[in-house]
Amino acid sequence: MSNIAAAIITIGDELLIGQTIDTNSAWIAQHLNELGIDVLRRVAVGDDRNAILTALDTELANAELVIITGGLGPTADDITKPLLNEYFGGKMVVNESVLEHLKDRFLKHNRPFLERNLKQAEVPDNCTILFNKYGTAPGMWFNKQDKVIISLPGVPFEMVSIMENEALPKLRERFFSDALLHRSIVTAGEGESFIAEAIKDIEEALPAHIKLAYLPGAGMVKLRLTGRGKDSIKLAAELDAKQKDVAKRLENIVVAMEDIPMQQILGRWFTSHNATFGLAESCTGGYISHYITQVAGASNYFNGGIVCYQDELKEKILGVKKETLEQYHAVSEQTVTEMAQGALRVLHVDYAFAITGLLGPAAPDDSAPVGTVWMAVANKDTVKTKMFHFPYDRERNKEMAASMGMLMILKFLTATLTPNPSR
Amino acid sequence: MSNIAAAIITIGDELLIGQTIDTNSAWIAQHLNELGIDVLRRVAVGDDRNAILTALDTELANAELVIITGGLGPTADDITKPLLNEYFGGKMVVNESVLEHLKDRFLKHNRPFLERNLKQAEVPDNCTILFNKYGTAPGMWFNKQDKVIISLPGVPFEMVSIMENEALPKLRERFFSDALLHRSIVTAGEGESFIAEAIKDIEEALPAHIKLAYLPGAGMVKLRLTGRGKDSIKLAAELDAKQKDVAKRLENIVVAMEDIPMQQILGRWFTSHNATFGLAESCTGGYISHYITQVAGASNYFNGGIVCYQDELKEKILGVKKETLEQYHAVSEQTVTEMAQGALRVLHVDYAFAITGLLGPAAPDDSAPVGTVWMAVANKDTVKTKMFHFPYDRERNKEMAASMGMLMILKFLTATLTPNPSR
Repeated sequence: MSNIAAAIITIGDELLIGQTIDTNSAWIAQHLNELGIDVLRRVAVGDDRNAILTALDTELANAELVIITGGLGPTADDITKPLLNEYFGGKMVVNESVLEHLKDRFLKHNRPFLERNLKQAEVPDNCTILFNKYGTAPGMWFNKQDKVIISLPGVPFEMVSIMENEALPKLRERFFSDALLHRSIVTAGEGESFIAEAIKDIEEALPAHIKLAYLPGAGMVKLRLTGRGKDSIKLAAELDAKQKDVAKRLENIVVAMEDIPMQQILGRWFTSHNATFGLAESCTGGYISHYITQVAGASNYFNGGIVCYQDELKEKILGVKKETLEQYHAVSEQTVTEMAQGALRVLHVDYAFAITGLLGPAAPDDSAPVGTVWMAVANKDTVKTKMFHFPYDRERNKEMAASMGMLMILKFLTATLTPNPSR
Repeated sequence: MSNIAAAIITIGDELLIGQTIDTNSAWIAQHLNELGIDVLRRVAVGDDRNAILTALDTELANAELVIITGGLGPTADDITKPLLNEYFGGKMVVNESVLEHLKDRFLKHNRPFLERNLKQAEVPDNCTILFNKYGTAPGMWFNKQDKVIISLPGVPFEMVSIMENEALPKLRERFFSDALLHRSIVTAGEGESFIAEAIKDIEEALPAHIKLAYLPGAGMVKLRLTGRGKDSIKLAAELDAKQKDVAKRLENIVVAMEDIPMQQILGRWFTSHNATFGLAESCTGGYISHYITQVAGASNYFNGGIVCYQDELKEKILGVKKETLEQYHAVSEQTVTEMAQGALRVLHVDYAFAITGLLGPAAPDDSAPVGTVWMAVANKDTVKTKMFHFPYDRERNKEMAASMGMLMILKFLTATLTPNPSR
């Protein structure tokens, strides 16, 4: 393997007691990968001198690049900076450009510049400063023999900004490496085992430099082909061919030929069909709407949604009939149908999705059992409904309902315009 | 330190190329902590034989408990089970109870039970099975000398279910340890440095067995006191006293005396004041509504929300005047004020919050610049408005807008009922 080997060390007691979920490592790994740098290990340690030193020694023994995040704040539990200074045999000096940036920030935020903030402008004299435009702690780049060590703040958007603007371009220059390319296929509706069986022969015939991975999610499985090689044009062609083979075999369940989330698959459909969309959400409480609006440009097809958490709003805004609610209750096929039809009309859209259910933990006495969810998709000609029973806790049920809801929308859209000839 | 030392090893190529964010480690760390088990290191490695063996050797050298997640699926890239079998010198045997559970699941899901699925019922004969009620791969508990190694599937809700029902109770029995207690204080509106300066003397006077940590978030800083000791009653009293000291010093910025998210702080306020609440969201697209409905029992105070992504809906549903939209545009103090007043009326609530802005990446020609967000909170007597400029990308701007919005709601609520005497 001729790729550059990297390790990520994340520092912070909050990671070890689980109060913070580490999103930095995934972001860093993804972006190093695009450069052709492989992350071999990720290690999290506490704000503890010996633990940090051990991690540095261990990871530097095998990696050519070590990226460290966290432990750079101004408070007493952040000890990384002086420790790195010592580890790389430097001297702490006040950096004038960092100091200026700091004072500037404090002024802008109308905060007094305190004695302890001066320390934030001190950096080891043997590192290169990576400018942090969103925060006070600068990134630091150290060279040790032929290895590179980069220290970054733990606040995600500060880390991202320094990586994008400073570290990644420098790394691209510093390291040469083989091409590393990915191709993805997103499928919906079948499990990992089924897919593995269906493409067994293709998988077994893959050359050594192309690997296939399965990434299962809620109701979906992503397949990822990863290839390595000197000749990136040849590699791309090989991967394209393999991707096509797999996709052809899985034709009925492929929903995208790249690694994009469901909301973006939906967005592309609405955009290319010049159609508008709206939502009526009860139990998911705006969560699907949040997903849909994560996509830049969603305003081109998404008109909006009604979060009708109380029955009163289902009636008053969406026009669900009082009798329907009384006779069938809020969680029923009848109610969800009227919600979807109401949404079409009120939101003035071509397609509407409605959802009503009980996610838990408790359910009213006379209602459906916890986990029952009714969904409906509608256009002016058709309404399709479906009932689900989710067996998990409130949060997981909400997540599942949102995923299954978006999948149901996609199936409705594609079935409407591309009828399956076998039916 | 008399606590049990643990390490977590997460396995999977998807973690190292960053396609999956590791939420398992945080959950596991949190729940081990409650038992008095300290996670000293977390390591992520790929689906690679040598990497897994090295990680096992390294972590077992220092930890008494190692928890492994991932690498247990039925596909070719999951190699953990046979490897663990070999590492602990066992023999693979079909486990009848696992087989029965598997066949049962396949039957229920109307899937054929394939040859390759039989392998999923095979387990090392020297481990204790931890039943996986939500999935096919069982958890496994190995003893090696005086150490414990637990292997769990990587799918988060399967891992959680096995930990809660099987592993944690067994661990409680297996290990004795000192009490480990936490106390949290949530503050809003001041930075880490300011707080550190304000409570410097209290922090410096903390006894060696009590530690203070700062966990900064969007507009908020959480403080966490952690204490260890033999006598949990005495320790609890000490921590309570220290928590009170810190909270008294930070009186004006404390929003909660336990580690709960903002949506829950709001929920408690609405519940205890018997007040109802509703939302009118444009740029955040249902995200705040999603947060509010994450709280179990939100239906007791949250009536619902209007996601008015298009101006047409601001006018038609919320009653924002056509002239207002034409004269001041959608992102303006005038529009957000009418949105909040409209939400009060249409959603039939005591308090309403409205938000309209441009999160990016692009802004229409004649509009406010990207990142401009107007917010308003209203009750029948008052409307309070505020403008923000968020400098980040679309996703981060949305996150910030939601956080700052909820903070603004809380400040409005507390200021309304508890006027600050200094103003």
